[in-house]
Amino acid sequence: MKRLGRVFLVGAGPGDPELLTLRAARLIGAADVVVHDRLVSPEVLDLAPATARRIPVGKAPRRHPVPQEEINALLVSLALDGLTVVRLKGGDPFVFGRGSEELDVLRGAGIPCEIVPGVTAAQGCAAAAGVPLTHRGLAGGVRYVTGHCRSDLPLELDWAGLADPDTTLVVYMGAASIDEIASGLIAHGMPADLPVLAVNNGTTPRERRLLARLDDVGRRAGQAGFSGPVLFIIGRVVSLYEQCPGALLVRLAADIEREAAHA
Amino acid sequence: MKRLGRVFLVGAGPGDPELLTLRAARLIGAADVVVHDRLVSPEVLDLAPATARRIPVGKAPRRHPVPQEEINALLVSLALDGLTVVRLKGGDPFVFGRGSEELDVLRGAGIPCEIVPGVTAAQGCAAAAGVPLTHRGLAGGVRYVTGHCRSDLPLELDWAGLADPDTTLVVYMGAASIDEIASGLIAHGMPADLPVLAVNNGTTPRERRLLARLDDVGRRAGQAGFSGPVLFIIGRVVSLYEQCPGALLVRLAADIEREAAHA
Repeated sequence: MKRLGRVFLVGAGPGDPELLTLRAARLIGAADVVVHDRLVSPEVLDLAPATARRIPVGKAPRRHPVPQEEINALLVSLALDGLTVVRLKGGDPFVFGRGSEELDVLRGAGIPCEIVPGVTAAQGCAAAAGVPLTHRGLAGGVRYVTGHCRSDLPLELDWAGLADPDTTLVVYMGAASIDEIASGLIAHGMPADLPVLAVNNGTTPRERRLLARLDDVGRRAGQAGFSGPVLFIIGRVVSLYEQCPGALLVRLAADIEREAAHA
Repeated sequence: MKRLGRVFLVGAGPGDPELLTLRAARLIGAADVVVHDRLVSPEVLDLAPATARRIPVGKAPRRHPVPQEEINALLVSLALDGLTVVRLKGGDPFVFGRGSEELDVLRGAGIPCEIVPGVTAAQGCAAAAGVPLTHRGLAGGVRYVTGHCRSDLPLELDWAGLADPDTTLVVYMGAASIDEIASGLIAHGMPADLPVLAVNNGTTPRERRLLARLDDVGRRAGQAGFSGPVLFIIGRVVSLYEQCPGALLVRLAADIEREAAHA
């Protein structure tokens, strides 16, 4: 009888390949197959053995994606073939990653499966911009929502609950809906001048940031011509970004890596 | 003139040393000094050069901690001495880590500083337990709050906003206040039988889990005799844990690491 394979649902982190976990790097290096999202960087995929199959299943905006059911069936089929499968997802598989849907199907098929968490985009972008997600006196907590919804449905958000000035609000996949979200928040009492930081392609060399106010972020983000994922950090913590627009926040880690290479 | 040092505010992840990021591991390996919290594991500290100073500044419950002002002053002083300082914090420095307070002081002193995000406890515990933080139809978002407050003050939480059954609520540092939090949530309309997963020492070999309901989690967590950090995951996503109590969710990554060691 053929030996049963196994599937690792692995978070690839926010974009910067150095923000992968040690476990993720080791597992990718031991994979027979890597089934990966579109946003996983080439440097991360390069960690897989040269002999490993790489299967992209990413969803590009306005392109026909591989349906979730096909991804689920593919993972089961590869594992039944006895392979060690790494299912690599941008960010964290359990934060807007649909990892739990894949886990359900794999469990149902009796396939051994493990989850490896990753640094999610909110944390990666916050660190890169020097804007904390919590800060005493400014934000006692943080909340992640998605601005993405089925195109034929309106956004269903808990507006009254979201309009809490003591909580940092992070919107994933909100480029198309940030105007609606900002209006909803203002209508429910959030200050129109609340600062918002939009981060495009966070933690990658193509990172771009836009500092806006809640009442103009929709217009300005629309004009910015962003391409790739955009994350919105909304809340008083963003005022800390205004105080110090990044001059001191340089890419020191790159220095260290260069020094190590020359040591 | 003496060369100015630099400070990296680095997230050490949720406990498991394999959940450190590649960048964090590299920076620790290049540090002159590591200033670390109590919860950072010995395996992580072992990554520092043998010659590096290790300065613990952790806050143990009911012990006199190093005051935050002293930590800030220590970091500035070490950097002014020209040293490469890694300030190592459990989880992520920008999620309940007070990293931004240290960043403020370092910026004020003109010290080059960079933030390295880490996997936060919520993600580590969720992955280890196989419970997603978001899941279509069960939770459209996730929210992190802290149950810790100054001992002379009542908890100041946005109860009405927190009582949202479509959002997973994660409580950090809530062992002492979970009873009060659960009662507040029920008083604001959350179902008494909403499932709660308490995770003690998540992602470490000492991990313990307790599955409870919102109306008995306070009593049961109190009786559990937890020692070390406890994280509470509250919400409908926890029902996915009930459906499959971990039997299939084994430590596969350990197998891979063993196989690699014997290859």
